[in-house]
Amino acid sequence: MTRNKQTPLFLKSYDNLSQVLVDKQLASLGDAYINFVYSLALSKRKGKPYGAKVKGTTLAEALRKAGLRTSLPSRIDRHTISDAAEAVVVYAWLHNLLSLEDSVQTIAEADIPENGLTQLILKAKEKIKLSKLVPVPC
Amino acid sequence: MTRNKQTPLFLKSYDNLSQVLVDKQLASLGDAYINFVYSLALSKRKGKPYGAKVKGTTLAEALRKAGLRTSLPSRIDRHTISDAAEAVVVYAWLHNLLSLEDSVQTIAEADIPENGLTQLILKAKEKIKLSKLVPVPC
Repeated sequence: MTRNKQTPLFLKSYDNLSQVLVDKQLASLGDAYINFVYSLALSKRKGKPYGAKVKGTTLAEALRKAGLRTSLPSRIDRHTISDAAEAVVVYAWLHNLLSLEDSVQTIAEADIPENGLTQLILKAKEKIKLSKLVPVPC
Repeated sequence: MTRNKQTPLFLKSYDNLSQVLVDKQLASLGDAYINFVYSLALSKRKGKPYGAKVKGTTLAEALRKAGLRTSLPSRIDRHTISDAAEAVVVYAWLHNLLSLEDSVQTIAEADIPENGLTQLILKAKEKIKLSKLVPVPC
């Protein structure tokens, strides 16, 4: 995969979505992205500023519901599954496939925030698929 | 102070900067903002994705260097001082006085990240002052 001209300088190239999902460094940046987006969404929902950290169990469940669990090795712990959720969402944002505003609105407007996270991962997956940056399974 | 039309729906009105600085709810959202901005800036500096949490001691020192310590009550702990740094920066961002990109660049381009945080707080202070949203001491 050649480097896309839109790729941020600090991102390496990936051959497929699984490589994105298991990138722990990308996940550590994604952790900061998701916590910020989630905090803004909850601020909107509650009508006052609110800071929140998304639980790993919540992220792992959202990744499963978004159908991406099968793109990961079968024998991994829940922490690695939640890392994958953080990695895929920030990967989409870093490539301008998903905006901060859209990310926040997706969680703010969901019936419950947890389902908003699933929707956010689904959006990231769909946008990456359309971009053809890396192959994405159906 | 009447509500500015740009004020996000979930932000209350403040009479002066000190009220912004001591708003713990605003600080909790600001914590997520600063950690995300700091993580992006360090990713740029290191040339790879990186997630980081800014230490309270670092933020408290940056607030002092930006000359805002005197806008807080004299007898407060360091945690409250670092909260003030988080509150003032996200207040500026929420009012579109400071962009995410500018926040990241300010830390990415500083000689050391710690000084970048001081510069970021100084920028927030200056932009709030120019906006006249709330009175800011010199």
